[in-house]
Amino acid sequence: MKARLECIPCLLKQSLNATRVVTDDPVVQEKVLKSVMAELLDAPVDYVPPLIARTIYSIVHDITGCDDPYKSLKMEYNRIGMGMYPDLKDIVDKSDDRLFTAVKLAIAGNIIDFGADIQFDVEETIEDILTKKFAINDYPLFVESLEDSENILYLADNAGEVAFDRILIEEIMDYADVVYAVKKKPIINDATIDDAIFCGIDSIAEIVTTSDTPGTILERCDPEFVEIYRSADMIISKGQGNYETLSEEAGYIFFLLLVKCPVIAADLSVKIGDGVLLSAP
Amino acid sequence: MKARLECIPCLLKQSLNATRVVTDDPVVQEKVLKSVMAELLDAPVDYVPPLIARTIYSIVHDITGCDDPYKSLKMEYNRIGMGMYPDLKDIVDKSDDRLFTAVKLAIAGNIIDFGADIQFDVEETIEDILTKKFAINDYPLFVESLEDSENILYLADNAGEVAFDRILIEEIMDYADVVYAVKKKPIINDATIDDAIFCGIDSIAEIVTTSDTPGTILERCDPEFVEIYRSADMIISKGQGNYETLSEEAGYIFFLLLVKCPVIAADLSVKIGDGVLLSAP
Repeated sequence: MKARLECIPCLLKQSLNATRVVTDDPVVQEKVLKSVMAELLDAPVDYVPPLIARTIYSIVHDITGCDDPYKSLKMEYNRIGMGMYPDLKDIVDKSDDRLFTAVKLAIAGNIIDFGADIQFDVEETIEDILTKKFAINDYPLFVESLEDSENILYLADNAGEVAFDRILIEEIMDYADVVYAVKKKPIINDATIDDAIFCGIDSIAEIVTTSDTPGTILERCDPEFVEIYRSADMIISKGQGNYETLSEEAGYIFFLLLVKCPVIAADLSVKIGDGVLLSAP
Repeated sequence: MKARLECIPCLLKQSLNATRVVTDDPVVQEKVLKSVMAELLDAPVDYVPPLIARTIYSIVHDITGCDDPYKSLKMEYNRIGMGMYPDLKDIVDKSDDRLFTAVKLAIAGNIIDFGADIQFDVEETIEDILTKKFAINDYPLFVESLEDSENILYLADNAGEVAFDRILIEEIMDYADVVYAVKKKPIINDATIDDAIFCGIDSIAEIVTTSDTPGTILERCDPEFVEIYRSADMIISKGQGNYETLSEEAGYIFFLLLVKCPVIAADLSVKIGDGVLLSAP
């Protein structure tokens, strides 16, 4: 999915949000903002948005000297996620359809996204997603694919959300082997290997790394990862960044996401706040 | 109130919104966006935001050739406002405190603001403002000032909202003469003389014009208007733009507004969505 013009003010705002987490110095904040504007002024707008985001966040890094602005917030949300884990497990245990409930919770966890908006309410989102229908619901195909699969590649999105992914992985691990893919280096609040280990994913799945760019851009990933991607019977792709970068890629992918931006909402013909379980192609 | 860094992505987004109302041509849209970025790159950020907004919208004008992007939307909201007028009047008639109810409705009407956000719900806002408390409520001072005043200057904000202003003016016109000030030329969806006449303000108040810039920047207004401003016993200032430009000005001003942006929310120590009736100084 290509960027649209409204991605530009959004990315500009993101750069300011990330800088403010690192420093209160208005001079540094203005320097980042104006450097990002200068970069965006010359940038082609028809890239996938995560590629532009990568450049923007590297400017934040270069000017502030901090390569992981959301480090402590990521750890805070890992703790929040794992703190909620027993209750989430209880919701699954008491539900009529364990698998579908776990899918819903994994999608609800996708609200934890500092790129989309630094303000969100996890509890409210869980309640909302558990009670309302998905805007796109390919759950029957999801079940069918799961039953036919021997190996599943699960593309993580954000830290904190990993605890919600664990809930889903624990439901699908009886069907197939699961490989959980995280970022190679910190970018925005995307999950890295530290987050996956904190949430205990290492005890239930193999953990691999993709690249240092939001989403999953295959050309930026190591050949070992691309091999895993190509040979997976089923791919579970979490979040907006993975959708933005893989919506036109080959592979039997299920996109699980909460829609948080108008560009993706328009691309999927759904509304902001909608939950999506989309089978592609 | 001076602009903050987050005004920059917001103004950039506004320029795109306004351009999209005028044209579907992505080349023109990108040209506006990038021209506005180039302008903002060199602009000092410590101006009052409406002054920067004036420049931004003049770029939209220069590139699209349209000096009034929101013309038909303004008229649509004048019709919606006047369509609601009998019901609003009924709400006032049935209330325990006519004046306070009229103040609340005038503030609720401030939701009609294409600069802040092109998506809003007028009915929901009325319900919300009628039932919840203001975040800042200087109503006792407002009543006291009204009883002591012989002439009142009422600074309009947006088209459509004028119908809600009429509800309030009809309650205060027994206390004092009212002068209703609108913009001299179209800017964003700010009320002009056409909007005031459409909503029948000319039959209950004198109508004067300020300038072609959002808010009220006295140095940009005609001397006749400044004289009215200086000699008013009481000033009723509607909306964010007037607050942004007059919060540090002299004059016995009551700011009536709905808070729709994080910069104003921070300046007033309130939350987005709050209603405010603030006496200054």
